[in-house]
Amino acid sequence: MLMQTHEARLSALREELKRRDLAGFVVPISDEHMSEYVGEYAQRLAWLTGFGGSAGSAAVLRDQAAIFVDGRYTVQVREQVEERLFDYQSVPATSPVAWLAEHVGEGDCIGYDPWLHTHGWAKSAAEQLAEVGAILVPVESNPIDAVWQDRPAPSSATASIQSDEQAGRSSADKRGEIARWLKDKKLDAAVISALDSIAWVLNIRGEDVSHTPVALSYLLAHQDGTAELFIAPEKVTPELQRHLGNAVTIRDRADFEPALGEQRGKRVAVDPEYGVAAIFQALEDGGATPVSVRDPAILAKAIKNPAEAQGHRDAQARDGAAVSRYLCWIEANAPSGEVDELQAVARLLSFREETGVLRDTSFDTISAAAGHAALPHYRVDEDSNIPIPPNSIYLCDSGGQYRDGTTDITRTVWVGPGEPSAEQKDRFTRVLKGHIAIATAVFPDGTTGGALDALARQYLWAAGVDYAHGTGHGVGSFLAVHEGPQRIAKPAGGFPGTGEPLREGMILSNEPGYYKAGEYGIRIENLVLTERRDIPRADEGVWLGFENLTWVPIDRALIETKLLSPTEIAWLDEYHAQTRALLAPQLDGEALDWLERHTRPLL
Amino acid sequence: MLMQTHEARLSALREELKRRDLAGFVVPISDEHMSEYVGEYAQRLAWLTGFGGSAGSAAVLRDQAAIFVDGRYTVQVREQVEERLFDYQSVPATSPVAWLAEHVGEGDCIGYDPWLHTHGWAKSAAEQLAEVGAILVPVESNPIDAVWQDRPAPSSATASIQSDEQAGRSSADKRGEIARWLKDKKLDAAVISALDSIAWVLNIRGEDVSHTPVALSYLLAHQDGTAELFIAPEKVTPELQRHLGNAVTIRDRADFEPALGEQRGKRVAVDPEYGVAAIFQALEDGGATPVSVRDPAILAKAIKNPAEAQGHRDAQARDGAAVSRYLCWIEANAPSGEVDELQAVARLLSFREETGVLRDTSFDTISAAAGHAALPHYRVDEDSNIPIPPNSIYLCDSGGQYRDGTTDITRTVWVGPGEPSAEQKDRFTRVLKGHIAIATAVFPDGTTGGALDALARQYLWAAGVDYAHGTGHGVGSFLAVHEGPQRIAKPAGGFPGTGEPLREGMILSNEPGYYKAGEYGIRIENLVLTERRDIPRADEGVWLGFENLTWVPIDRALIETKLLSPTEIAWLDEYHAQTRALLAPQLDGEALDWLERHTRPLL
Repeated sequence: MLMQTHEARLSALREELKRRDLAGFVVPISDEHMSEYVGEYAQRLAWLTGFGGSAGSAAVLRDQAAIFVDGRYTVQVREQVEERLFDYQSVPATSPVAWLAEHVGEGDCIGYDPWLHTHGWAKSAAEQLAEVGAILVPVESNPIDAVWQDRPAPSSATASIQSDEQAGRSSADKRGEIARWLKDKKLDAAVISALDSIAWVLNIRGEDVSHTPVALSYLLAHQDGTAELFIAPEKVTPELQRHLGNAVTIRDRADFEPALGEQRGKRVAVDPEYGVAAIFQALEDGGATPVSVRDPAILAKAIKNPAEAQGHRDAQARDGAAVSRYLCWIEANAPSGEVDELQAVARLLSFREETGVLRDTSFDTISAAAGHAALPHYRVDEDSNIPIPPNSIYLCDSGGQYRDGTTDITRTVWVGPGEPSAEQKDRFTRVLKGHIAIATAVFPDGTTGGALDALARQYLWAAGVDYAHGTGHGVGSFLAVHEGPQRIAKPAGGFPGTGEPLREGMILSNEPGYYKAGEYGIRIENLVLTERRDIPRADEGVWLGFENLTWVPIDRALIETKLLSPTEIAWLDEYHAQTRALLAPQLDGEALDWLERHTRPLL
Repeated sequence: MLMQTHEARLSALREELKRRDLAGFVVPISDEHMSEYVGEYAQRLAWLTGFGGSAGSAAVLRDQAAIFVDGRYTVQVREQVEERLFDYQSVPATSPVAWLAEHVGEGDCIGYDPWLHTHGWAKSAAEQLAEVGAILVPVESNPIDAVWQDRPAPSSATASIQSDEQAGRSSADKRGEIARWLKDKKLDAAVISALDSIAWVLNIRGEDVSHTPVALSYLLAHQDGTAELFIAPEKVTPELQRHLGNAVTIRDRADFEPALGEQRGKRVAVDPEYGVAAIFQALEDGGATPVSVRDPAILAKAIKNPAEAQGHRDAQARDGAAVSRYLCWIEANAPSGEVDELQAVARLLSFREETGVLRDTSFDTISAAAGHAALPHYRVDEDSNIPIPPNSIYLCDSGGQYRDGTTDITRTVWVGPGEPSAEQKDRFTRVLKGHIAIATAVFPDGTTGGALDALARQYLWAAGVDYAHGTGHGVGSFLAVHEGPQRIAKPAGGFPGTGEPLREGMILSNEPGYYKAGEYGIRIENLVLTERRDIPRADEGVWLGFENLTWVPIDRALIETKLLSPTEIAWLDEYHAQTRALLAPQLDGEALDWLERHTRPLL
């Protein structure tokens, strides 16, 4: 059978829109849970346009269509999407709705799938289109699905149990906490639609989304501690049913929308960031009152309990040994110029698989040689793959999913046989100084990630350089590698979470960087755990700092020692001493030699 | 004539409320311009209760009354206000409206003066009271004024001209900028009611408010560059009239409210922070549309032009010499124990007056000995005055108003003859390190004061201590010593302005501190001017840093040199070298000796 062209797909969609009397349609990359990573069944934008990036959207009208991507994808969109079919548009300079408002006619009906957009988006889009006389209309079913001939079915993998020992708390305990929260807020129930929140509340995991071990489902949690789980029946094994117990009713995923219609008279919590427009609508249609409030699992999930914290330490120690074997292999093989980016990805995966307990990678490995490393979100594929050039900087950002924890680490290494330039060493050392400033920060309870961000940037700023991404994100426990609500980033930079106070038990990445377009990129990333600090003669109140979780040598070939203060040198030496103590028992032969060479004191 | 007691005043107010069928009334410290410093004529809370603090409010009901103050005034309110008349209440734990909502009856009418509260406050208060069945009612005239027998008249001082040379721009130019802004925003006119904004737009000054050289007035700026100034006729000299020119119509201040009623059909900008509820109401009643938007003068005023920047440098150099004479005098006289806080205030004033050009102090001098210095907002009076004890820390925060600039400086000095404790030196040095971190910060355009704040606190935090105030505020040019919109403070700490990007030309204070309750306090404050930086091999875009404006030695007796890095020592030595170069030509005799001793290199 011939592959359908994108031109044919676009025509088919337009025919379908015509049948439905729609003048246009909006196509996001999104699923019913507002997930960061979206299953194959929901990759509608890629199917329609060919675009393979992780963020973007399209708007289709009768005679025109456009694709909207941000600065990261300006080049990629031109390679993957045909300009004669889709105009290239840049966000945030424009947006699908702003573009539609310029191109629609009076009285035009523009469709959107209410399961793929937030309530807030739909409200604002409807207002903007109304200003030009057009009408935003929710569709009953997605018109792309009607014409997508070989659309993958959603995953049918069974869900699994995360034991109470690994989770550190029972699901009943968590549901009890949510029940008390509902009572305090005078709410009857909460819709929980974020997949990692459901996994956390029920102590279950799944295999329905790549990189994030969650199961496609919805949860309705009630004020009495009971809950209804809406999930495809084939995903539920008898063991899982026993694990969930009598207080959790299992219903078909297809029953979710009708169930929302049965909440008449109730006040139901819905998170406006994760609850799609259709959820709000179904509740309202059924006579319930949706109350926009943050999903009660989000903050609780971010504050790791002692069992989760210990799981992370164990996972990181294991993962650190795998990454160290890998960096030893890179050091031995890359200077010849015969290792390419994809081979490196495969080799790293094999070292992680050798642990015997890897469940998945926690995201697509960023294996970036030379100029590719200057793209913070670079993703290597067959087309982009290059050999790692001798005498260049190689950046690798990767992570593993293990039952006891999720890892995320970036190391930037010099690939010989020559020496890095003075500028490269200067920039790397400034990134390292910022990394150490976060690692050693002490701060009072109530301090936000936004307040700490400049500590990581100050030494780069002094040289007139910066990095265009955040400094740290939350990380789940065998869950999402990007987890809210906390974040270290510029406080007025448009990132959500920078105003969230950091709390004891929160895990964050610490990943300052520097990127020189077309030449090289640098990032040093460890995970840290927010911990309480007892300080002699401190002010009253709680003081916090970070316990380091990630232990892999930082490449001294790129360090300009003169730029480090005595305190910073002492930190690095102590970091390397602890790394050696933790990893040496797991390594032998060349890798052990490599570890010992790379963990000696700096001076 | 006998002084009326506060009991009699409260009774008289209650009688007046009864006559007006009001069950209660709210009494803020506020004027019609939402000024930080309020003229005597508007000191209604002080008249009613005896409270002398600068922030607070009262609520009066038929049988109960309460006074609301924040943590700074917990002690003072007990000394100044009779508890049998007013319950003591703490904000933010409660508020006048929350308290009223608990104590009013169904159907009660609660009065408020719409010229003393913002539109937002009135809206929210009306909603909260409506929930308990009470009605918030604007009064036609303030009932306190009806019973305040010897109420001071508003100042009748004439307004004066700020020359175009000193202002750096003509008023016509500024009004033209506002006219273009109105056009862009599709607005017909702007109400400008903040007194310092009016002074800036018209290049006029006044003497109606202590510490801030402004004239009581309102301004209505139109899209054609013309404006109407509403001001008491006796304030306008013929010279001033010539200065204002034909494009500015002068009208009586009493005509302002009727004039708002004449804007039918117009869209009129009103700043919701400075435009009181009565302004919104009068516009609406007259058929105009008030549009809540920031006063267009605020950002423009904050960005100093070259003439204003040079004025500040000149004013600071002059003021620095006066403060140096004063610190020399303190060093010579205080160790005997015979100088008290009030004498110190008087002496500092006389040194500033000797410049021959002092117009006013820019706020009440904080002259704080020993434990008093631990109160960041301490204000000395006859009752609190104590001699500066030998072997103690003395903190002095003060400023002068000069035609060319407004100053604000804090120095904390050791008063011998003994030596400070190790803890005192440790804390002072950590404050100094934070001060230097701000002074030397370099950052990209778009960076906010909230992003920089932690740089000032990091060394204190490392020792488990902090300070409960912001790090820096804007400062006017012969205008308000506290000027928005920018601010350096914790980004999620509730201070306005922390999300405002810093721009070339903005002036800020740099004033980290440390306070040990009952024992001592430390603050080191200079003003800095945001300037552009050219950095070799920097990223594209604008890079900013701070030019230091304030030059007075920092007391080395309190410095623990071992805690300073080589870079910090170099900064301090360079600071002192520049201070000596700038001040030596203005000093002689003992003061010159003092300067030379205090500006030597540290090591």
